[in-house]
Amino acid sequence: MARYRLTLEYDGGGFRGWQRQQDGIVTVQGVLEDALARLCGHSVTVLGAGRTDAGVHATGQVAHFDTTRPREPWVILRAVNVMTPELLTVLAVEEVDDRFHARYSAVYREYFYRVLAGRSSAPALDRRRVWHHPRPLDVERMRLAASALLGRHNFSAFRASFCQAKDPVRTLSRMEVEAVGGEIHIRVGADGFLQHMVRNIVGTLSVIGRAEWSPSMMEQILRSEDRTKAGPTVPPWGLYLERVLYGEGVG
Amino acid sequence: MARYRLTLEYDGGGFRGWQRQQDGIVTVQGVLEDALARLCGHSVTVLGAGRTDAGVHATGQVAHFDTTRPREPWVILRAVNVMTPELLTVLAVEEVDDRFHARYSAVYREYFYRVLAGRSSAPALDRRRVWHHPRPLDVERMRLAASALLGRHNFSAFRASFCQAKDPVRTLSRMEVEAVGGEIHIRVGADGFLQHMVRNIVGTLSVIGRAEWSPSMMEQILRSEDRTKAGPTVPPWGLYLERVLYGEGVG
Repeated sequence: MARYRLTLEYDGGGFRGWQRQQDGIVTVQGVLEDALARLCGHSVTVLGAGRTDAGVHATGQVAHFDTTRPREPWVILRAVNVMTPELLTVLAVEEVDDRFHARYSAVYREYFYRVLAGRSSAPALDRRRVWHHPRPLDVERMRLAASALLGRHNFSAFRASFCQAKDPVRTLSRMEVEAVGGEIHIRVGADGFLQHMVRNIVGTLSVIGRAEWSPSMMEQILRSEDRTKAGPTVPPWGLYLERVLYGEGVG
Repeated sequence: MARYRLTLEYDGGGFRGWQRQQDGIVTVQGVLEDALARLCGHSVTVLGAGRTDAGVHATGQVAHFDTTRPREPWVILRAVNVMTPELLTVLAVEEVDDRFHARYSAVYREYFYRVLAGRSSAPALDRRRVWHHPRPLDVERMRLAASALLGRHNFSAFRASFCQAKDPVRTLSRMEVEAVGGEIHIRVGADGFLQHMVRNIVGTLSVIGRAEWSPSMMEQILRSEDRTKAGPTVPPWGLYLERVLYGEGVG
């Protein structure tokens, strides 16, 4: 038995999310499992670091699978890229120790969110790549509010009602809000995320950026541990899973 | 009669180029003329600064049209954006003097070309936004070669065989080659361009970047005025019409 680690890039608009569903529904896991089953000659389970929602993109998703038919990593890379739609690309394949688990060994995940703010016309070229917010947003207010989230907290206020995680405590170690050209780029890194957590944080930041709430509201919302106090869930197509890091000796 | 200037962004992959063709073929000019005819209640001709080929994108194309039914520019902007596919966005509408001509008054045009070089896997997210060149390219060699093109020259060596321009002399005032992240960005500005000129220049630069030709070949190719001496025509989907400038008093 050999275990392989995959690094993946995909256009979330082409998939109904990461997780395999019934036949006929195109998901990232489903497409990968089908291709690898054909390559390996046995059924294959692919486990991902983050189960991205429908529409969410990835530039650095990590996954792993096991096979009884070991092959050179470059053979797997080429074969999977030939057998899957062009909306998905395997960037790298490495053979790993069987202690490596794409989801449970991950110690850090980083997401990126793109907002096109303050431009009345919708984006034609990046129409499923950024969230279009026609009114301007005040980046300084957003940055001030965002800093309240850094550290170890109960993030229940930013958690989807249907989120199934047992423990709502996470450690946010990176939280950046930057104006880049006509866009606002938000980067969030943590040991893990609750469902819709990044999209709910960005939604709350957008209300603060429109000056409807004060930046100090962020801390109150966080402490309330109440989803109804936070802002709306922003669209999935502005969100990118960029990076997953692993501990020493299992990465 | 009133004349309006339009600034346009579009995803070239959704159109068979700028120029109107027979019914049923989707072109940028055709889509705009149909929407404006409905808005104005009479047939409309839209003239563009650059007649981009099928697949070529624009972030700053400029066009104009005349109507006997003047309206507020913002009304035209909103109406056209509602009536056209999301692959096309009108960024700005201004009423202009009738001496303004999007094509003939333009004094400068700038194109941008994106190459994803040195990465074996194809791009999933930017699959119709960059040219994928799996082998690495030497940016320094390309930059050295590119500088030979600056100035006023006969560009016949970089001109499509079917190009109909009477005069092959153009003045290149900007020619930049830059490594940005994992990409190579090429920016070319001139008073005007011959057909396929930017794509043939980039194709020639790519041969030099692969070290198959020396950088000094660029000047010899230019002087030959012979299309067969230059490199291949690279794909349209890496190319963006970014900017068009107009002279004093007509812009």
